Amino acid sequence: MKVIEVNGYGNIDVLRVGSRNIPKPGKQEVLIKVIAAGVNRPDVLQRKGFYDPPMGASDILGLEVSGEIVSGDLGNSDFSIGDRVCALLSGGGYAEYCIAHVYHCLPIPKNVTFEEAAGLPESLFTVWNNVINIGNLSNGESFLVHGGSSGVGTMAVQLAKSMGCLVYSTASSDEKVRAVESLGALKCINYKNEDFVEQILNLTEMKGVNLILDMVAGDYLQRNIKVLSYNGRMVIIAFLGGSRANLSCVDILTKNLTISGSMLRSKSNSFKSRIASALRETVWPLLEKKNIIPITYAYFPIDQVSQAHAMMESGEHIGKIILRI
Amino acid sequence: MKVIEVNGYGNIDVLRVGSRNIPKPGKQEVLIKVIAAGVNRPDVLQRKGFYDPPMGASDILGLEVSGEIVSGDLGNSDFSIGDRVCALLSGGGYAEYCIAHVYHCLPIPKNVTFEEAAGLPESLFTVWNNVINIGNLSNGESFLVHGGSSGVGTMAVQLAKSMGCLVYSTASSDEKVRAVESLGALKCINYKNEDFVEQILNLTEMKGVNLILDMVAGDYLQRNIKVLSYNGRMVIIAFLGGSRANLSCVDILTKNLTISGSMLRSKSNSFKSRIASALRETVWPLLEKKNIIPITYAYFPIDQVSQAHAMMESGEHIGKIILRI
Repeated sequence: MKVIEVNGYGNIDVLRVGSRNIPKPGKQEVLIKVIAAGVNRPDVLQRKGFYDPPMGASDILGLEVSGEIVSGDLGNSDFSIGDRVCALLSGGGYAEYCIAHVYHCLPIPKNVTFEEAAGLPESLFTVWNNVINIGNLSNGESFLVHGGSSGVGTMAVQLAKSMGCLVYSTASSDEKVRAVESLGALKCINYKNEDFVEQILNLTEMKGVNLILDMVAGDYLQRNIKVLSYNGRMVIIAFLGGSRANLSCVDILTKNLTISGSMLRSKSNSFKSRIASALRETVWPLLEKKNIIPITYAYFPIDQVSQAHAMMESGEHIGKIILRI
Repeated sequence: MKVIEVNGYGNIDVLRVGSRNIPKPGKQEVLIKVIAAGVNRPDVLQRKGFYDPPMGASDILGLEVSGEIVSGDLGNSDFSIGDRVCALLSGGGYAEYCIAHVYHCLPIPKNVTFEEAAGLPESLFTVWNNVINIGNLSNGESFLVHGGSSGVGTMAVQLAKSMGCLVYSTASSDEKVRAVESLGALKCINYKNEDFVEQILNLTEMKGVNLILDMVAGDYLQRNIKVLSYNGRMVIIAFLGGSRANLSCVDILTKNLTISGSMLRSKSNSFKSRIASALRETVWPLLEKKNIIPITYAYFPIDQVSQAHAMMESGEHIGKIILRI
């Protein structure tokens, strides 16, 4: 089968088309004939050598796909051979066939295309784990998501909005600001022109927000602490602004704050299965009713994977970048 | 009535004996004839002008007392006038009489003297809120408490030990190390001679600990992150080592860590009432069976409050410093 191989570590030139044997599904695993695969930042980090796949995971890039189940152990799931699904993977998605844990598969929602569905798992599993499980966002709370135009950001904004939350966001251009506000953010702040701390405090009458989903870290950590309300929570999922942070503990104590971090990929299969069940029950009906819509920016044929990675690194995209296999 | 007044802000010389009218209890409040009062670090900070009492609280120092209920509104509590209690206060304990919220009172446990009981509320409310409520310490987990010989530390060590936890601690002298280990710590590390990061990682076979109770902050924050296990939690309750911290987010994400902070004094009455109920149900039986014992280092007559503050600032004490009123 055709796959994308990473030839050493480095820039987009190390990505090349290769050939591998079709993998064999094990217990509770299915083989998926891949139709589309999502491109994610961890793929870029892995290509550069900064993010090794966890033990036992495929060395092929690709954390999410859509396609058709062609064989494997269906366990006690309600899936059948031939079903059209999207799935979260621990790797191996940039390929004609991939292995998925059967309980990490979800049906393609009505009203959603294969290509759109390929971009759902990584964003939605991430949002669910960090915003709902860890961040404990409750209906009606105020919520700030940095990078609101990213794949994760567009889903976080829509999910929080569907819960009746007051959603704030940041983005790097006026075009992105408009896109994020069209998805339901009360206000998206162009951080290149405006100070988000000042803006959020003004918008919340100095109360601050209940929860922040942060992918920046670096000097955003202390700034986030400033805009959190009493009992506020912050969940860090990436450090695009650098991993080092300098902060003051005074507000952490006096405002009773909680700062958490997490990464999805290394979590256990059963942990991810529980998220899949929660998504199917809660978010899938919203996708089918178009209360939440997949936001896709660009599609590339698999042979143009290098261009897809270049776009991801440019940061110009709004929503997902998808490979057609 | 006789009280201790703070004459301006500054060193121990600003503490002096004064006279005030006996305060009048309001709704759900009782008047306590004070027998003994605990001395706490926030008293020292308040004396120095670094920690103003919350709105509506007495300007007199003192966050905990023991004594006798002499009048007031007993609400739906099971207390009667004349009952011997200890109580958490929002201030006002360095005085012959003080006001306490009736639901923040607890009976003097059997086998515990009035003087010992005066030192229980601040430590135990703090430990319960931070170790159990926020830190979510579970039976059998591993637990590190910095400052294990402090009032809070001695209670944290004993409570965690009573839960079957593996308890580690740090202290500043060999004498304190012995005291903390005699309370049930598997190992207390003299941080003046040894690096606690190296020691804890060795002692836990490189796994780290599930929960850290920290009163140091400063450069302990990043060192704590290093010794936390996967899914580890850290709760910060003071910053004796400085409030600024420089840290790396990498471990926060990859180890799925949670960092929280809290201060008890500004919490709502109902919040503190819930802690009082939990303590009475869970910790009071352990005190009565002597599974947990109050550790008191020194008693001072109220006229020698300056010496009591000097001792608190010297850090020589192991356990509580108590004023006899």
